[in-house]
Amino acid sequence: MLAKSGLSTIRMQSKRQALLLSSSNCHGYGLLEFAKQEICNFLSINNVRELIFIPYAQNDFNGYTKKIADVIDPWGFSVKGLHTFPDPANAINSAKAIFIGGGNTFLLLHRLYEKNLVNIIRDKVDDGSLIYMGSSAGTNVATISIHTTNDMPIIYPPTFEAIGIVPFNINPHYIDKVDETHKGETRDQRIGEYMEMSHAKPVLGMHEGCILHVNANQLTLKGISGAVLFQKSEMKTKYDVGADLSFLL
Amino acid sequence: MLAKSGLSTIRMQSKRQALLLSSSNCHGYGLLEFAKQEICNFLSINNVRELIFIPYAQNDFNGYTKKIADVIDPWGFSVKGLHTFPDPANAINSAKAIFIGGGNTFLLLHRLYEKNLVNIIRDKVDDGSLIYMGSSAGTNVATISIHTTNDMPIIYPPTFEAIGIVPFNINPHYIDKVDETHKGETRDQRIGEYMEMSHAKPVLGMHEGCILHVNANQLTLKGISGAVLFQKSEMKTKYDVGADLSFLL
Repeated sequence: MLAKSGLSTIRMQSKRQALLLSSSNCHGYGLLEFAKQEICNFLSINNVRELIFIPYAQNDFNGYTKKIADVIDPWGFSVKGLHTFPDPANAINSAKAIFIGGGNTFLLLHRLYEKNLVNIIRDKVDDGSLIYMGSSAGTNVATISIHTTNDMPIIYPPTFEAIGIVPFNINPHYIDKVDETHKGETRDQRIGEYMEMSHAKPVLGMHEGCILHVNANQLTLKGISGAVLFQKSEMKTKYDVGADLSFLL
Repeated sequence: MLAKSGLSTIRMQSKRQALLLSSSNCHGYGLLEFAKQEICNFLSINNVRELIFIPYAQNDFNGYTKKIADVIDPWGFSVKGLHTFPDPANAINSAKAIFIGGGNTFLLLHRLYEKNLVNIIRDKVDDGSLIYMGSSAGTNVATISIHTTNDMPIIYPPTFEAIGIVPFNINPHYIDKVDETHKGETRDQRIGEYMEMSHAKPVLGMHEGCILHVNANQLTLKGISGAVLFQKSEMKTKYDVGADLSFLL
């Protein structure tokens, strides 16, 4: 199992630098606008001027990359789509920073494994030579597994295990609103089903607008909305922007 | 692949008899109440007096079976949980009818494969010796695959291919309401992502309260709400209760 053996390489003293967004869109803001300051700070502090965008969670690679570049280029960072490089693994190996965008998590993970990128990304993030940004599906694949994605399983990936930059699960676009007339499971019920599994890890439900900043062994909530933590046999706990979640590492 | 070879055994002239509910709960009704008449008709016409309930989509097998039995027993049918039999495969082999309840589709499919029940159920439904009832997750696993479940992937099943009583996909609890302040994908967007896949089959989005009656090569919408059909490169089509969908077989 690729992922299993790979996961052991995320060391306690990892040099990981990651910015994990719950979503790229947030009510009342243009694309990524709510996260502008955090993204600019994060990339600048890490001396990044060029980003490789990974559009694999969607199918229109050119269109998707252009949409992201149109927002981020004016902030002073150049964005290139991974699909424009002849060899994706080589491109990642030479890259300083990547941004994995949202879409369908199963499709994204399937393509990352297909192109043998999961281990490369994990190892390079671990040793501090690759800066990671992700949003929605791109945040899901940064965690231990995709067990808590909201997406439809439109393709069967070789495993649900993911890059494992953080050793827990994230539920992006987390929402606790309940529609009383609809009888499908609520988000909390769905996460509760996962928590009943023997293999369940803690789940951080990140509201839209929430950003998780991973700075080596420090975890901090940023952005404009907070998060909710689900742990085995415990009530869920709310955390506001600014909260220190380093205990999860 | 178990499922793949198995799927070929569903013949064009299958004797299948199935009643597939979008959900067991429907706004304004008690558990299964909206479907009472259809369930009673379906079981009576097929001379069924005893049902084996398969509670695998949830974890409290006794509690779940009791909840279902408390509703269906008074209608004149005796309900026993599959988990109370020493050998599940033997029990299915001797059964006249099964009802697979809702919960988590991944967990359900995982357990059906683990206990080697997928091929047994498919073959017995195909030759007319086993009557099938399913609701929600139990409806998802009756279709060609679980690619269009709404559930969280809380466990990794050996394949997404399912029993294949019908050769298309179903999205249960289908809803087209949109929350303008939430930026997660809408149900139509999620199904649209699936339709972009080369392996995509037609998807029947069944509103809560909708029932699909499979009578050999006849497919009819029953219940108290209709459905929406998604096909490749076509606009979605609405179907009301009473519609004949046999062309999907």
